[in-house]
Amino acid sequence: MAEDYKLSLLLDFYGGMLTETQREMFEFYYNDDLSLSEIAENEGITRQGVRDSVKRAESQLTDMEKRLGLVGRFYKMSGDFKKIHEAAAKIKDCNGHNVYARDIEENADRILAVTEEYCE
Amino acid sequence: MAEDYKLSLLLDFYGGMLTETQREMFEFYYNDDLSLSEIAENEGITRQGVRDSVKRAESQLTDMEKRLGLVGRFYKMSGDFKKIHEAAAKIKDCNGHNVYARDIEENADRILAVTEEYCE
Repeated sequence: MAEDYKLSLLLDFYGGMLTETQREMFEFYYNDDLSLSEIAENEGITRQGVRDSVKRAESQLTDMEKRLGLVGRFYKMSGDFKKIHEAAAKIKDCNGHNVYARDIEENADRILAVTEEYCE
Repeated sequence: MAEDYKLSLLLDFYGGMLTETQREMFEFYYNDDLSLSEIAENEGITRQGVRDSVKRAESQLTDMEKRLGLVGRFYKMSGDFKKIHEAAAKIKDCNGHNVYARDIEENADRILAVTEEYCE
């Protein structure tokens, strides 16, 4: 996983445990890609203050994943949904081309619909 | 969700954030179904001490779910895996009885295998 993507997943999962200020700084820095100096200027605090806040948030999020491992768990589940989605698409394709059974079509559609949201 | 099942899910998800003692007391009480007095006797501490520890753990776990909502998210995903599993079983059944295509069979099996572990 790319480092920035990983941090953004960590924020998505554990961000609720940070203070509002920490979360804001973290989002400015990692999601909005502002520099420490830009954030400092916008927020009227020192560059060092922003840096400390971002680093503290980062280590808190990383520590939570080390203890709980929930991002890893969901990442595996998401991968499983993708595999299922591909398999259901193949079933639908084969059913449409070679043989046709409405029951197969309907159930393949059901699987595709359920997995859709995890495959965006 | 039944209250005890919910607490046991909360422990499974967020237990890593508790102290070892809190986690132990919580498991004795909710998973092993020991009484406060039994735990107190086994551990050589007061009944009130056990009670405080269990209650603190409970409120910490509940607070984390309120902030992060990851048990709820996981619960929804598990439900989706169950729906997928059922649909794939129907596809396999229909494919075996009415028409037969090896590609459909193989992909239905793939889906059943991936969803198996979430449907125990």
